[in-house]
Amino acid sequence: MASKFWSETVRRTEPYVPGEQLNLPNLLKLNTNENPYPPSPNVTAAIKEELDRKLQLYPSPTLEGLRHKIGDYYNLDTSNVFVGNGSDEVLAFSFMAFFNSTETIRFPKISYSFYPVYAKLFNVPFEEVGLNRDFTIPAEDFFQSEGGVIFPNPNAPTSIYMELETIKDILDSNQDKVVIIDEAYIDFADVSAVTLLNKYENLLVVQTMSKSRSLAGLRIGFALGSPELIEALMRIKDSFNSYTIDRLAIAGAEAAITDTAYFNKTTEKIINTREWTVREMKKRGFHVLPSSANFIFVNHYHYAAEDLYKKLKEQLILVRHFSKPDIENYLRITIGTDDQMNTLLKTLDLIME
Amino acid sequence: MASKFWSETVRRTEPYVPGEQLNLPNLLKLNTNENPYPPSPNVTAAIKEELDRKLQLYPSPTLEGLRHKIGDYYNLDTSNVFVGNGSDEVLAFSFMAFFNSTETIRFPKISYSFYPVYAKLFNVPFEEVGLNRDFTIPAEDFFQSEGGVIFPNPNAPTSIYMELETIKDILDSNQDKVVIIDEAYIDFADVSAVTLLNKYENLLVVQTMSKSRSLAGLRIGFALGSPELIEALMRIKDSFNSYTIDRLAIAGAEAAITDTAYFNKTTEKIINTREWTVREMKKRGFHVLPSSANFIFVNHYHYAAEDLYKKLKEQLILVRHFSKPDIENYLRITIGTDDQMNTLLKTLDLIME
Repeated sequence: MASKFWSETVRRTEPYVPGEQLNLPNLLKLNTNENPYPPSPNVTAAIKEELDRKLQLYPSPTLEGLRHKIGDYYNLDTSNVFVGNGSDEVLAFSFMAFFNSTETIRFPKISYSFYPVYAKLFNVPFEEVGLNRDFTIPAEDFFQSEGGVIFPNPNAPTSIYMELETIKDILDSNQDKVVIIDEAYIDFADVSAVTLLNKYENLLVVQTMSKSRSLAGLRIGFALGSPELIEALMRIKDSFNSYTIDRLAIAGAEAAITDTAYFNKTTEKIINTREWTVREMKKRGFHVLPSSANFIFVNHYHYAAEDLYKKLKEQLILVRHFSKPDIENYLRITIGTDDQMNTLLKTLDLIME
Repeated sequence: MASKFWSETVRRTEPYVPGEQLNLPNLLKLNTNENPYPPSPNVTAAIKEELDRKLQLYPSPTLEGLRHKIGDYYNLDTSNVFVGNGSDEVLAFSFMAFFNSTETIRFPKISYSFYPVYAKLFNVPFEEVGLNRDFTIPAEDFFQSEGGVIFPNPNAPTSIYMELETIKDILDSNQDKVVIIDEAYIDFADVSAVTLLNKYENLLVVQTMSKSRSLAGLRIGFALGSPELIEALMRIKDSFNSYTIDRLAIAGAEAAITDTAYFNKTTEKIINTREWTVREMKKRGFHVLPSSANFIFVNHYHYAAEDLYKKLKEQLILVRHFSKPDIENYLRITIGTDDQMNTLLKTLDLIME
C-alpha cells in the first residue's frame, strides 16, 4: 500500500524481480546465467594489490584507465566508452539519457524484463513488439520508432542472435533516434555490433563483465558509442553519483578486460558445453531454441515447464521459469560446467522416467 | 553543445564537479574530506576472505546481512535500513522516492552542491534558503515546505552542526513531507538525528562510510528511516539496478560497521587534530567557523582565499576553494593527521610571511 510520503515516481514503479538467490549448500544454480568458472587469476591478484593501496581515498570519477583498456580491447577511443555499476546501471542511465516522456520507444515483448521497469520508472511510453512464431525478432517492426529502440542481442530469454545485416536495417531506419543493442551475452555468439560503430552515430552497444568475464559479483557494465552518446551518459552519471565504481572493482575489471587468453579459454569451454548440452536435451525430447548465449531456452512436448522447474528445485537444481504468456511452458537454463550439465541431464532422466 | 540524440533530461542537467583528483606523488590531499587513516584491518581481512569465494556469482540484491549489521549498530531493525552505492546514490534515489516535479523543496543556499544537480536531473523545483550571517541555517525558513526538505548536518562546507531540538522543530512543521538529514559528517559531531527516528516517520537520515569509516574507495552509503520510507527507496533501487553493491564492498562494509573500537579510535584522533588545528589557525589570524566535521571552513582578514588556494597548490597542498558568492573568500580544509596539519601550518606560515 502506498504511503503518503511516496513520490509519483515510486507509485508508478513495478520493480524488477531478479532470479532467486537461494543460499542452500549443494544447490546447483543454473538460474541467473552466471559463469561457472572463476574470473581470471589476474583479477584476484590485481584486487589484492589494490587492497594494499588507499581504500580511504575516492576512486577515479572519470574512470579513464578502465575506459582506456576497454577501448583498447575494441580498438576504440576512451571517448567511445562509458562504464557503469553493472550493465543495469548503464541501461538505467541510457533510458534517462536518450528516451523522452513524449515519444514512444519500442522493445520486444519477450525480452529482458527490466526494460518495462525502467520505462515506468522514468515515465517513458513504450510499445512491446511481439516476436515471430519462431521467437525471432521481427526487425521491420522496429523501423522508424518514434522514441528509439532497445533490444538484447542475443535476445533473452530466447537466446537467439540477430545478424548484423538486420541490425543495420534497424539503424538505417532510425537515424534520428538512439538504437541500444544490449549485448550481455554477445561473447557466446557471433559478431558484436561494435563493428558498426564507425558507421552509426545513433548506435549504443551495452555490454557487461558479469557473464563472459565471470564478474557478476563485481558489478561492471559498459557502453560503447559515439562521443556524443557517451557524453550524454557522462552528464547523467555526473548528475547522479560522482563515483559509481569502487577501487577494487576498477582494478578487477582492468585485469579482466586485458586477460584475453583466459577469456577465450573459458568462453570456448562454455560454448562447447552448450553445444553438447543442446544435443543431449534434444535426445530427451526437448525443443531447444538455437542458442548464441550462455543459456538455453527449452520446452518439452510431454512435461510442463513449471512442473519440471519444481521437480528440479526439489533436487536442488535451480533453473528459471517465467510465468508469462507465450513462454510459460519454457525453461531458461544456464550453461554450467560439463559436470554440472551432466547432473542436470541425469536428474531430468530420473524426473521424466 | 547538445546533440540531437540527447533527451530532455540530459539537456537540463548541470553535472556536479567533484573535488580535483590529482595524481601527483607527494601531494597532500586536503580537498575531498577523506579520512587520513586506513580502514580497520578487519576490512581488508574480510575482503581477502571474500575474494576466495565466488566473484562469478551475483551479490545479494537485498543486502540483508549488511543492513542487519548497520541496524544493530543503531539499535534499528533491518527494515529501517537502506544501503546504496555511496551516499550520493542514496541521495539520488531519495530525490526520486520522496520529491515531486509539482512541489517545491527547500535546501540551504550554501550547502552540498549536489542538491541542485539532483533537482535539475529529476525535474524537482527547489528554493535555496539563504543562511544567517553567522552561516547557521535559519530553521524557521524550512517550516511548512511544500515539497520536503534536505540539508546536511553538520552542514557542508560550513562545518556547523544544528542541535536536535531545532531539527525537531523542522520535522514537526513538515509532518506530511519527508525531511532528509544528510549526516555525512555526523560522526565528528554531536548526536545523530537517528535518535529521533522512533518519533518521526517523515525523517530520513542519510550516512556514509566514506568519511568516518575510511571507505571512500569502496562506495557505501546508507539511509535510516521508517519502513515505509525504506520501502520506497527499495522500490526505486529495484526499478533501477538489482545489484548495486558488489561482493567485496559488502564484505568490507560489514567489517567496518562492526569494528567500533577502531572507529572510535580514529574518529577521536581526527577530532583532537581538528581542535588543535583550529587553535593554530586562529593564532595565525584565520577566522574559523565552529566545526563539527572532519574539515574546517576558514577565511583570513588579510589574504584572499583564492590566492592562498593557489599558493598552497604550488606547494603541493590541495584544499578546496568554491568560486561562489558569499563563500568565495573561504577555504574548506580537510583534517588530516597531526603531521599533515603541521605541514599545512608551516606552509601557510611561509606563504603569509
